[in-house]
Amino acid sequence: MRSPRTGPDNSPRRASKAVVARLSLYLRHLEWCQRHNQTTISSGILAKALNLSDAQVRKDLAGFGHFGTPGIGYPTSELIGEIRRILGIDRPWLVALIGFGNLGQALARHQGFLAGDFQIVAIFDNDPKKLGSREQGLVIQPLEELSSTRAIRSIELAILCVPAESAQDVAHAVVEAGFHGILNFAPTALNVEGIQVVDVDLTTYLEQLTYKVQSPV
Amino acid sequence: MRSPRTGPDNSPRRASKAVVARLSLYLRHLEWCQRHNQTTISSGILAKALNLSDAQVRKDLAGFGHFGTPGIGYPTSELIGEIRRILGIDRPWLVALIGFGNLGQALARHQGFLAGDFQIVAIFDNDPKKLGSREQGLVIQPLEELSSTRAIRSIELAILCVPAESAQDVAHAVVEAGFHGILNFAPTALNVEGIQVVDVDLTTYLEQLTYKVQSPV
Repeated sequence: MRSPRTGPDNSPRRASKAVVARLSLYLRHLEWCQRHNQTTISSGILAKALNLSDAQVRKDLAGFGHFGTPGIGYPTSELIGEIRRILGIDRPWLVALIGFGNLGQALARHQGFLAGDFQIVAIFDNDPKKLGSREQGLVIQPLEELSSTRAIRSIELAILCVPAESAQDVAHAVVEAGFHGILNFAPTALNVEGIQVVDVDLTTYLEQLTYKVQSPV
Repeated sequence: MRSPRTGPDNSPRRASKAVVARLSLYLRHLEWCQRHNQTTISSGILAKALNLSDAQVRKDLAGFGHFGTPGIGYPTSELIGEIRRILGIDRPWLVALIGFGNLGQALARHQGFLAGDFQIVAIFDNDPKKLGSREQGLVIQPLEELSSTRAIRSIELAILCVPAESAQDVAHAVVEAGFHGILNFAPTALNVEGIQVVDVDLTTYLEQLTYKVQSPV
């Protein structure tokens, strides 16, 4: 597999957020195709299904070394495997849920929110009324146990569902505990180093919606 | 104000999802600048703060008729006003929350998730145990009242927090009731016409995170 996505020194170059987001979209549609027994797919059909340009799809996939076969397209299952590998989801990820308020409970109880690649294996909260109770077979643990539990279970990711005012302190504890990544639901920017952070920003979604409502195609 | 973002027939051309998402990012940072009394900002500084290229920022803003002043930059407050106008948030939007499970409760109780431009003014659920109870000064109403309440209050947007299996039926009811847009949290694609839909897809966020964790810069 060629990999043109390298920098001048031949080290891997990280793709932009937009490209990575489109890889997720491609993956969703390719998995749908696979369930419908479509063994190959053309860039044109993939583009049309996702409301993108043919050139955009070809450029994105070529950026990761995928060129397809003219007149035939991309082999569906191979492309699925490759995108999953690029995104890092060719293996399962263990997740700790931190903050068991309404949002944390929603995420824990409806794991349809997460795909099968992500598994919540520990839940933390500091509310004495919640500690020790069980949810989905997990005991709600105090934050003091974050570091030891992370190490014992080799948990890599943390989903932060704590209020904005405590998010920064909890994020520091997450870094100290040795996690590799934070999915941050708290409506505040985290100031942390030595860890990857992705913020879930609902306002951006709402602004996409108002833009579309007032500028219908 | 010039507006180069027009099609061949001079009708407005809708910007891509990626451009709209970046406008939200620009807005967040410009508002921060305004709070810190920065009356002008250069594309280079804006780009650096958001980890984008200078050329990208200039291209995005030029697409909406903004060219700045060489050596000075963009006037902060004017650019804020213009981006808010483009995104449609130069006025408040009324929102109905549909589905008052854990996620709905999280959204209603922590309106920090929504910015000040969006106000939840009605809550609907079909659980008899929830109907009639009060939350944030609002009475939980049955879905049968969706249409009448929408009309009386002129509510434009619906936030869908119902389970995947009922999302399609509820979405049809939302269209029938005359809403203009749906923010869909249900982990399923809605098949509806005559309404704008934006899906909140948590899996995409998690995949962005795993990509970053395994490809650190």
